[in-house]
Amino acid sequence: MNTSLFDFQRTPINLVVSLVLVLTSFAGLAIAQPAPVQAPRPPIELYSAQDLGLAQQGMATAIKSELAYELIASLTTEVGPRPAGSEADPKAVAWAEAHLKALGFDRVWTEPVQIDAWRRIAAHADLVTPYPHHLAVTALGNSISTPATGLQADVAYYANIDALRKDTSDRARGRIVFIDGTFARTQDGGGYGPAVSARVNGAIEAGKRGALAVVIRSIGTDQDRLPHTGAMRYDAAIAPPIPAAAVSTPDADLIRRIATTPDRSTGQLAPLRLSLNLQNVATRNLTTHNVYAEIRGQAKPDDIVAIGGHLDSWDLGTGAIDDGAGVAITIAAAKIILDFGIRPKRTIRVILFGNEENGLDGARSYAKKYGQQRHQLASESDLGADRVYRLHTRVDEKTRPWLKAIADVIAPLGITFGDNNATGGPDFGPLTNQQDHPVATLAQDATRYFDIHHTANDTLDKINPTQLNQNVAAWVAMVWLAAQADHDFKPAPRKTP
Amino acid sequence: MNTSLFDFQRTPINLVVSLVLVLTSFAGLAIAQPAPVQAPRPPIELYSAQDLGLAQQGMATAIKSELAYELIASLTTEVGPRPAGSEADPKAVAWAEAHLKALGFDRVWTEPVQIDAWRRIAAHADLVTPYPHHLAVTALGNSISTPATGLQADVAYYANIDALRKDTSDRARGRIVFIDGTFARTQDGGGYGPAVSARVNGAIEAGKRGALAVVIRSIGTDQDRLPHTGAMRYDAAIAPPIPAAAVSTPDADLIRRIATTPDRSTGQLAPLRLSLNLQNVATRNLTTHNVYAEIRGQAKPDDIVAIGGHLDSWDLGTGAIDDGAGVAITIAAAKIILDFGIRPKRTIRVILFGNEENGLDGARSYAKKYGQQRHQLASESDLGADRVYRLHTRVDEKTRPWLKAIADVIAPLGITFGDNNATGGPDFGPLTNQQDHPVATLAQDATRYFDIHHTANDTLDKINPTQLNQNVAAWVAMVWLAAQADHDFKPAPRKTP
Repeated sequence: MNTSLFDFQRTPINLVVSLVLVLTSFAGLAIAQPAPVQAPRPPIELYSAQDLGLAQQGMATAIKSELAYELIASLTTEVGPRPAGSEADPKAVAWAEAHLKALGFDRVWTEPVQIDAWRRIAAHADLVTPYPHHLAVTALGNSISTPATGLQADVAYYANIDALRKDTSDRARGRIVFIDGTFARTQDGGGYGPAVSARVNGAIEAGKRGALAVVIRSIGTDQDRLPHTGAMRYDAAIAPPIPAAAVSTPDADLIRRIATTPDRSTGQLAPLRLSLNLQNVATRNLTTHNVYAEIRGQAKPDDIVAIGGHLDSWDLGTGAIDDGAGVAITIAAAKIILDFGIRPKRTIRVILFGNEENGLDGARSYAKKYGQQRHQLASESDLGADRVYRLHTRVDEKTRPWLKAIADVIAPLGITFGDNNATGGPDFGPLTNQQDHPVATLAQDATRYFDIHHTANDTLDKINPTQLNQNVAAWVAMVWLAAQADHDFKPAPRKTP
Repeated sequence: MNTSLFDFQRTPINLVVSLVLVLTSFAGLAIAQPAPVQAPRPPIELYSAQDLGLAQQGMATAIKSELAYELIASLTTEVGPRPAGSEADPKAVAWAEAHLKALGFDRVWTEPVQIDAWRRIAAHADLVTPYPHHLAVTALGNSISTPATGLQADVAYYANIDALRKDTSDRARGRIVFIDGTFARTQDGGGYGPAVSARVNGAIEAGKRGALAVVIRSIGTDQDRLPHTGAMRYDAAIAPPIPAAAVSTPDADLIRRIATTPDRSTGQLAPLRLSLNLQNVATRNLTTHNVYAEIRGQAKPDDIVAIGGHLDSWDLGTGAIDDGAGVAITIAAAKIILDFGIRPKRTIRVILFGNEENGLDGARSYAKKYGQQRHQLASESDLGADRVYRLHTRVDEKTRPWLKAIADVIAPLGITFGDNNATGGPDFGPLTNQQDHPVATLAQDATRYFDIHHTANDTLDKINPTQLNQNVAAWVAMVWLAAQADHDFKPAPRKTP
């Protein structure tokens, strides 16, 4: 577990500043002395010397910029937690619109997005037997409430959701199902996928076995008494809805210890009983907004380089890493390009999506309205503010060299060229599910992301400004060069399932 | 800030195991071939070869023992949070008595201790202006309640308690005083002393300036949304009592940012207003207990090597590092000595003190009853479970070499010999304030201790078993050799104030 992430990375980033400045000088040289056409062209020369020079200049500007950090500070301080449909939701939309206009983008507008909102009122859980213990608990997003007086039941413990899925017995009936699990800490955040199923599907699996409620180990890599929330779902065709909650990882450790350690004298497991009281409110058919800003392209204004993050956040923290960071990184990158004073060939569109967290509604609305428009590239920033270490793509083979050339430009930032299986981020999922578009992902170091994700700990202090600006630098280069390319990027052929 | 504490330290500890085994062999050799008496005697030879050999054997046993960890696991799981006067307090006393008896100590007993108890019911705080924000807050120990409906007031912000102390204006009157501050992360925990005054004395300083309440930045080195509790005090002769609370460090950052960042357009500071609701209950004249266990000395049974920790904990966590660790380390060390099967010369007394956290009542009770008894050495473990790196003493100059010799024995554990200004730990403060006694402190690495101290995060998972056992090993050697010394340790002369 790399807990010394910051110390380790500060030095390379400082080095990068020097490298960027050196490369900027080289780029200047390249403008003065273009390479002879007969020489073999490395990928980087797919772009003009002027465009490469501006990319380098933009990277150097990004490294020294305060804009991204200030945007996160402003959003987390002045708006704070901003779940879709909450009181803070329209404040967040107004915040975004005002800031994008103040930054001078060509066109700033909003579009309504229909949502179902969900709000937590209170959550309490206690271990009743064998030893009374107050548990750090939070309702999962969309959970129904318990009765007003709560409920109390014996626990049916499962080591993970697969153990629950395989259980054909009657053990869960009339009980509170507890789903334990593991979450591997990895640089690419790849532990999240296998872990998150307990949160998303736990209530269905427990409900169809007759459980009264489901409580899970928080989907996180930390050891803090701060539970992780996140969306869960019901399926009325499979199981009745039951209340769903997560306890913090130390509390889950306690439950695991009791559930799996036989008493030394008797050799028996102690009885394990929980009380749970969750009060939540669901409201259907509200409206939030996607917020848009564009730098209109000169040569191909209807050809879109689409970037952004999601404006909503969960309610427990102030949404600094999820996804104030993505909002700020992509706005700051676009602003640096805007300040080049040179119109890009294609239109650069920043999209701040509504209600990513609890329904991807803004993303689906975007896909519906803009799915037929040609996208040169679509890419979201939604994995925190730690440094980018790799550029993944999903484009056709003729387009790949143009992305490889971008990877070469941002290599001094410590970024390597990745595979061709990128998703482009959750909010471009509906777009690319509907129709193929070229996508890229600037993969961020997620080693500590899931310590903080969806908890009260998601606050401004978790943002490292140096790493944040390394992100902005990578985005400036990628967005600018994609917008300028002498090649219309094409999507990868759709895989046969 | 050393956040990679564990990874860094695992390797040296493994090395230590080998070294201990090697030294144990040497000690065996020493028994067979005693050094010629005419040779210059290094300090280590102040002790007999047999006693040195047993110290080495005890250290090797400690490194491989599971007892200390199991004691912490049992106490935190089966009793959990155990503030003095709480429902869990008698459970903790019963737990200690049962475990000490089961371990086979010569004599196990309890003594009543009079206490004033304090219990938190609920705490809520919100930033009202300029932006509504829910704050992570906890009442400080002994705080009175706010009115049942809470209170709301503008904030008078002070960068630290010294700024408040120097304020001769009327600024605090009718307001909520917010005391910010800094806490230096250091290996010896030395940042705590300067920082903690805001918690202990903040209500007096704010109260005498007419404040309605005092809220402080948590006294901690972390960046978690988990506030730190801890004792505060009133002085009716100086100021009326006012409610006192701490917000988590990220919340304090938010308040600092608002209180110190002028608006860019107006150049003015935004108005800052808080609402606060604390409900607590104080109960006078309850009884808790000190719990004792002894290995009776053979030659000098009334000459005491006094060790221990405190049995009570704050209520937010389960008291694993504060002070389940000290309880477990000293019990485990004494048990390893008990299992030598050889009576020590002097009596080894383990004391589990009652109500350290909110009054040092058990410590004062001990000093009153046993202050006139001769103590060979007094030493408490109350700074978590991370490794010992130094042995400090406070003894007279003729006694110092006997402690230096102990430091030489435990040097392979990565421990050096320190200064002669040790306190012996908080629970021996009343004893040594009353009358001089020789004391020692096995100084633990406190680099991360104050991340967790007095928060909900003080749970079993924060215990590193390898570092815990390094503690036990050091205690075994120190306690055994002090009990066996051919010299009656003498206290350092009292310093003229």
